[in-house]
Amino acid sequence: LTLVENGTPAGQSALAELFPRTGQAHVVGFTGSTGAGKSTLVNKVAREIRDRGDELAVIAVDPTSPFSGGALLGDRLRMRELVNDPGVFIRSMASRGHPGGVAHATRDLVTVLDGLGFPVILVETVGAGQAQVEVAQVAHTVVLVEAPGMGDDIQALKAGLLEIADVIVVNKADRPEAQQTLRALQAARLGGLAVEDADRDAGEASWETPILKASALEGWGIDALVDAVAAHRDYLRASPRWDALRTRHARAEVEAWLMRHLRTWVDTQLDPARIDAAVATVAARDCDPASAARDLLEVLVHHIKTSAEQEGA
Amino acid sequence: LTLVENGTPAGQSALAELFPRTGQAHVVGFTGSTGAGKSTLVNKVAREIRDRGDELAVIAVDPTSPFSGGALLGDRLRMRELVNDPGVFIRSMASRGHPGGVAHATRDLVTVLDGLGFPVILVETVGAGQAQVEVAQVAHTVVLVEAPGMGDDIQALKAGLLEIADVIVVNKADRPEAQQTLRALQAARLGGLAVEDADRDAGEASWETPILKASALEGWGIDALVDAVAAHRDYLRASPRWDALRTRHARAEVEAWLMRHLRTWVDTQLDPARIDAAVATVAARDCDPASAARDLLEVLVHHIKTSAEQEGA
Repeated sequence: LTLVENGTPAGQSALAELFPRTGQAHVVGFTGSTGAGKSTLVNKVAREIRDRGDELAVIAVDPTSPFSGGALLGDRLRMRELVNDPGVFIRSMASRGHPGGVAHATRDLVTVLDGLGFPVILVETVGAGQAQVEVAQVAHTVVLVEAPGMGDDIQALKAGLLEIADVIVVNKADRPEAQQTLRALQAARLGGLAVEDADRDAGEASWETPILKASALEGWGIDALVDAVAAHRDYLRASPRWDALRTRHARAEVEAWLMRHLRTWVDTQLDPARIDAAVATVAARDCDPASAARDLLEVLVHHIKTSAEQEGA
Repeated sequence: LTLVENGTPAGQSALAELFPRTGQAHVVGFTGSTGAGKSTLVNKVAREIRDRGDELAVIAVDPTSPFSGGALLGDRLRMRELVNDPGVFIRSMASRGHPGGVAHATRDLVTVLDGLGFPVILVETVGAGQAQVEVAQVAHTVVLVEAPGMGDDIQALKAGLLEIADVIVVNKADRPEAQQTLRALQAARLGGLAVEDADRDAGEASWETPILKASALEGWGIDALVDAVAAHRDYLRASPRWDALRTRHARAEVEAWLMRHLRTWVDTQLDPARIDAAVATVAARDCDPASAARDLLEVLVHHIKTSAEQEGA
């Protein structure tokens, strides 16, 4: 997994070897704001799935230093009760420093764990922003974890996340403000559903995103959450959406790899001194960065054409 | 600005035209976790800078829906007291859906505002993760905003952010837990400084990242924060770091544009049917995504070579 996460050649051949065996796992992404208690909830959900008899893997995208590269132990510690269960595989990964981005690296780890035969893979994203939405590129079922009364920054974020959520859960629902958060989510969901409807084939069964309450700390609501996640999996597998998701995920993977290969290819084709010179003209404000980059691309294409002509001559 | 943010050709020629006039502004990035009160703090900092006589621009990266594309008004509302001041320009931008990513789009807006002559540009990032670290690719001075007692998710994130922070401020310092957060940050900073030392030229004056306290809500500590930001600017301009930063930003810009041009170029050169076919073989598990993408790249290069040979013939 480390070889894969670091994008080494050995990791890449392992990926290619495992790939034909993939496509069986149900990948469940957990997204939501920092402070909503995602880690604790994922921990309890993992326990519940395990108690129902399934083996599973958990990928926790940990915050980490871009310099040290070392993931912190917080999430692992919180998962302590699961760590000694041989039917549970837990992997923390760094949230930064991956060639091709976090979503790309996460997808590679999912490929490995899927190929190794884990029927359920839980992916916990970290924090807010792009990474939260990108989980939809790897997960079949997206669980949005909210918590009561987390301020309007969080309220605002919901707009984007609501639309990718297949199951919504208000964690920390033992708090008095939970009812208000629940109502706000129900109101917001009404708008989101209209968007999803347009995306659905005529005659296809519809999925109404459930909004659940739970308290990971007090240990209630987990059962219903795991039921909802399983119901969404069954819904997907019985509808054309499962294949559509598979194609969407494949497209995201191919595009990410294409850009990554292109980057490597550019690095081997373009003289670093030429890039440095372009950067220097930009730093001196003699050329704008878009034009400087366009010139580099032209150099690249010219270089390929010239070598082709020489081969031809 | 909308033309630039959406990456239109008109926006790109505006960027090219403004670019020679850029490089004068002091760009200050505000990063930190959701809930630390960044927006309120940026609001007060803008007010203070304005009161000292400088005109300024504020770019707030707003959470938004990836579907609707519309930015929410939260941050704008919070900035209401500044909106009617003609010496302050406020721009909210969507945190998702930019060709080339948020950092790239932010940089383009900074280019425009810098080119238009704003001496100070404040950039407020949203949430956690990659975007928070990427602000260092556009800002000269990075202000890390923390708040007391925000749970261990946040504690963990600090490891990466501390190292890019030039000024650290504990907002909401009216709360009793502030002292504890301050001590934790001071302890964590000791590790971070060792990293920064290695990056510094021998004989160069050092910058010790100050850790300040403020309460944006109660309106104190803002003065000292603005002083620290100005001191960091003066330090940079008197050291080789200003030029080094300029080169680093230029490199990030050229690389981002190069990848963006490459992407457009690939789209024009590669037959969409060929991409669809590659995606289908991956979805069917007949080929792994890395190999499928490599094949596409080979098709692309072959295509260029063939067209060169035909031109030659």
